[in-house]
Amino acid sequence: MRLPNPIAWAPSGGIRLLDQTRLPGEERYLDLETVEAVAEAIASLRVRGAPLIGIAAAMGVTLALREGETAARVPLDPVRRAASTLGATRPTAVNLHWALTRMMRRAERAVEAGEPLGAALRAEAQAIWDEDRAMCDRLGALGAALVPADATVATICNAGVLATGGIGSALAPIYHLHRLGRAPRVIVPETRPLLQGSRLTAWELSRAGVECTVIADGAIASRFRRGDVACALVGADRIAANGDVANKLGTYALALAARAHGVPLYVLAPSSTIDPATPDGSAIPIELRAAEEVTAWRGVPAAADGVPAWNPAFDVTPAELVSAIVTDRGVVPPGQLSRLMD
Amino acid sequence: MRLPNPIAWAPSGGIRLLDQTRLPGEERYLDLETVEAVAEAIASLRVRGAPLIGIAAAMGVTLALREGETAARVPLDPVRRAASTLGATRPTAVNLHWALTRMMRRAERAVEAGEPLGAALRAEAQAIWDEDRAMCDRLGALGAALVPADATVATICNAGVLATGGIGSALAPIYHLHRLGRAPRVIVPETRPLLQGSRLTAWELSRAGVECTVIADGAIASRFRRGDVACALVGADRIAANGDVANKLGTYALALAARAHGVPLYVLAPSSTIDPATPDGSAIPIELRAAEEVTAWRGVPAAADGVPAWNPAFDVTPAELVSAIVTDRGVVPPGQLSRLMD
Repeated sequence: MRLPNPIAWAPSGGIRLLDQTRLPGEERYLDLETVEAVAEAIASLRVRGAPLIGIAAAMGVTLALREGETAARVPLDPVRRAASTLGATRPTAVNLHWALTRMMRRAERAVEAGEPLGAALRAEAQAIWDEDRAMCDRLGALGAALVPADATVATICNAGVLATGGIGSALAPIYHLHRLGRAPRVIVPETRPLLQGSRLTAWELSRAGVECTVIADGAIASRFRRGDVACALVGADRIAANGDVANKLGTYALALAARAHGVPLYVLAPSSTIDPATPDGSAIPIELRAAEEVTAWRGVPAAADGVPAWNPAFDVTPAELVSAIVTDRGVVPPGQLSRLMD
Repeated sequence: MRLPNPIAWAPSGGIRLLDQTRLPGEERYLDLETVEAVAEAIASLRVRGAPLIGIAAAMGVTLALREGETAARVPLDPVRRAASTLGATRPTAVNLHWALTRMMRRAERAVEAGEPLGAALRAEAQAIWDEDRAMCDRLGALGAALVPADATVATICNAGVLATGGIGSALAPIYHLHRLGRAPRVIVPETRPLLQGSRLTAWELSRAGVECTVIADGAIASRFRRGDVACALVGADRIAANGDVANKLGTYALALAARAHGVPLYVLAPSSTIDPATPDGSAIPIELRAAEEVTAWRGVPAAADGVPAWNPAFDVTPAELVSAIVTDRGVVPPGQLSRLMD
């Protein structure tokens, strides 16, 4: 199984990033040598996926010290500036801010303890990455138990290698089973408006040798009716305390179609995605994105001039449509999330 | 209300056609002077929509006689050749073949009766068009009674002015109400893969001064949840005897979302769309179209090279999700279609 490496340390000490905006046409890697270059890559979606953005930002902080470490009179100043620059790229990305906070705290501890700051930060960024990779492996192993070995499964958007530091969240069971020599196939809704399904998920699956078929988002209900889809595996952006799940636009429609045809729907996400402070889905704010994502496609108009569009980034799938939530702390029905919360 | 004219007689005696492949960017009209030019326009989707294709083909037959009428030794020969050329453009289009058969029969009667053939054919084509326009008006009046006057309604694909000889089928109640000074608004799913919603429906509605909002197909369930959509109005390609409805891909997903949120779903179509020989939806053959419609857009790849796509043109909405079927013969629940059949 030949998985792409969306992120790596470059031989120069910089960060080697797969430019996801070039996919699926071109597999181009960028060596980023400055904090500003990493910030640009995050802001312009060259790197995306909540966990992977956190890893990229953490690695990006280490670049602050390549020139600044000895020159700065206050050693934490370049680190603070880097965290500020990187944090401004995606203001609502929870993982990004979590990773930057963790890097700042490690920097403070290193300075207090008189440790070499650069080595400490590099180790912390590597730890964030390694922990995410282990999390993906855990989701893969737990989720694989729910997936018939050579089944056809459905997903949506991209919650795979290109979104994480490892084998993904929703796609982790697929890769886990393929590593064991099994061959599940994947139905991939294209995921309008930004086509993360056809552009990213279909690319990483086919590159890894996993058989997949792209469909228009509106085709998922018909595909379930055919009776050959064993289950649906989706990621989550936020999970409310009652088990309602916010995820990429189109997940709710997929969940309704799954329920209509008796197809189990599994949500796979790190336990940190569960937000005990959010009682249910109605409390989750839904980001509205630019109309142009819907009314044009790569700059070519798809709708008449001036026609407005309603373009929510996410939707909310009610808990009653979710068969189980798979996290690193275990698999539970959505109504029993409290078992996973401290 | 300023409705476009997708078809008209040109001053030259030819056919003036709105080139729908140029929409929404450009409102360009073509004057077609030969049978071959009309056939090319149908084959390349410059004119589309089952009723409008039938009208265009009937009008196209009249062009056979502009040069051939006096020259042909057997007067029906040019008509037969025209019907054959036009019939080969969209082999599965029922309306097209119905219209061509009707034109041939009229030609035969004219020759038998010694009537001027050209005038007879032109009158028959005009009758086909006029009958369709009246049909649209009837669907509009019947459907309008189901739509709150200033409501927001949802549709899918294009079953409007650009698909018929009049004010459409699914969109007819909208135009009917606007003519009465009411102002329903329309939610328009873009309708992948060919974007007839954003490209055509949003164009004709906004050109007519009807307020509309485009959404990604996956957003319809979230939009229904907001609670501001009064009903959904969709067309039909074929209606089985039990009330199952074949229509553009995505209709079934829209129907599931409508049911989940208590939004009534009305299907509007000529009574000729009801096929008593088809007992239920499982007997309706579903055309599979080219993968490239999904994996690329206007020639730009959207998925990795070689990734397959499953691209059914239609889906089947089961009768139990349909609130009522609106035809020129009346409005009935889908389980009582036999009341409309002879």
